[in-house]
Amino acid sequence: MKLYDYPKAPNPRRVNIFVAEKGIEIERVMVDLGTGEQLKPEYREKNPACDVPMLALDDGTYISQIRGIVHCLEALYPDVPLLGKTPSEKGLIEMWEHLAFMDGLLAVAEVFRNTSKGFVDRAVVGPYGYPQSPELAERGRLRIANFYTAFDSRLADNEYVAGDAYSMADITAFVVCDFAKWIKSSIPEDCANLLAWYDKISQRPAVLANP
Amino acid sequence: MKLYDYPKAPNPRRVNIFVAEKGIEIERVMVDLGTGEQLKPEYREKNPACDVPMLALDDGTYISQIRGIVHCLEALYPDVPLLGKTPSEKGLIEMWEHLAFMDGLLAVAEVFRNTSKGFVDRAVVGPYGYPQSPELAERGRLRIANFYTAFDSRLADNEYVAGDAYSMADITAFVVCDFAKWIKSSIPEDCANLLAWYDKISQRPAVLANP
Repeated sequence: MKLYDYPKAPNPRRVNIFVAEKGIEIERVMVDLGTGEQLKPEYREKNPACDVPMLALDDGTYISQIRGIVHCLEALYPDVPLLGKTPSEKGLIEMWEHLAFMDGLLAVAEVFRNTSKGFVDRAVVGPYGYPQSPELAERGRLRIANFYTAFDSRLADNEYVAGDAYSMADITAFVVCDFAKWIKSSIPEDCANLLAWYDKISQRPAVLANP
Repeated sequence: MKLYDYPKAPNPRRVNIFVAEKGIEIERVMVDLGTGEQLKPEYREKNPACDVPMLALDDGTYISQIRGIVHCLEALYPDVPLLGKTPSEKGLIEMWEHLAFMDGLLAVAEVFRNTSKGFVDRAVVGPYGYPQSPELAERGRLRIANFYTAFDSRLADNEYVAGDAYSMADITAFVVCDFAKWIKSSIPEDCANLLAWYDKISQRPAVLANP
């Protein structure tokens, strides 16, 4: 098994923290997003969606998308469960991970990819050339503000994002908060619950090992 | 257990087909998206994300987001598995379901929600008032065209979207193809694999029962 990786970027980081929490050792293959290596034929034939990370199984199966990778790894390495044990936990973790992705990660990406010089005509992850939209960047800033307040409310009554246990939903929400620094956004001072949770998560060894 | 539902809309339909495939009987509570019932305080206090469908467990837990609902139901009713049995199947189903959602469902929604009169200042699902963007609607049309060709290629060598077995990835991709009719888009004639797959899925009893 090999993990195609680019540790600096937020999506690979979600998987790298997940892997570190489980204590799994996986061989890495670096794909340099800085030079567009993910768009070159050699990578594209393995992964037509041209995104990183990607998991290569020993039988020749390639699995991309964070959800694909973490569900495969959770099934292979069920110790240290990060996707829930009971039906209710599984549902809540998927729900909150999806909300962190949709309302947080995509919101920051809307700003970043629609304003950065390096992403002219590449406003959406993948092989297609979509133009940048200043309007969309502006909307992203509104959305990330709403993400902070929604998750701050959630954490008023819950120790972790999906409830009592640390999970993949925390990993994604935490990576969103760090990714937001790329667009000079940070957790507002009045989001005390979110700030306290952020400090707690930032001290986990798996997070410290994947800065 | 109760399912908050609005069968005409594409996201509830994904869950309704999933439930029908499994042969589960669940009490329904209708939430009228046509009159904005999902935004009213009574629903919002159960689901601050203000979206439908939502699953209410008997212990008072509310689970929203399609991913949350189907993972909870798959764990409760493991017969007729629709999220995979082996680690590789689980990974591939999550991967392809995510691609169908991101590149298909969100693309159609980009067009629909940014052009329909009923969604002025509600361009994003949920409680916040985001303005419509004609630019984004235009980009959505490019994206749905790329969805058709990418899934047509995938189905050249695979009977179902995630491989040999029918799964949640087929349900979402199928609902995308029908949702596209709302924006007067349809599978192009040169996508023979996708057209043949669409015909096959459309004849499943669970699909016929949830038009």
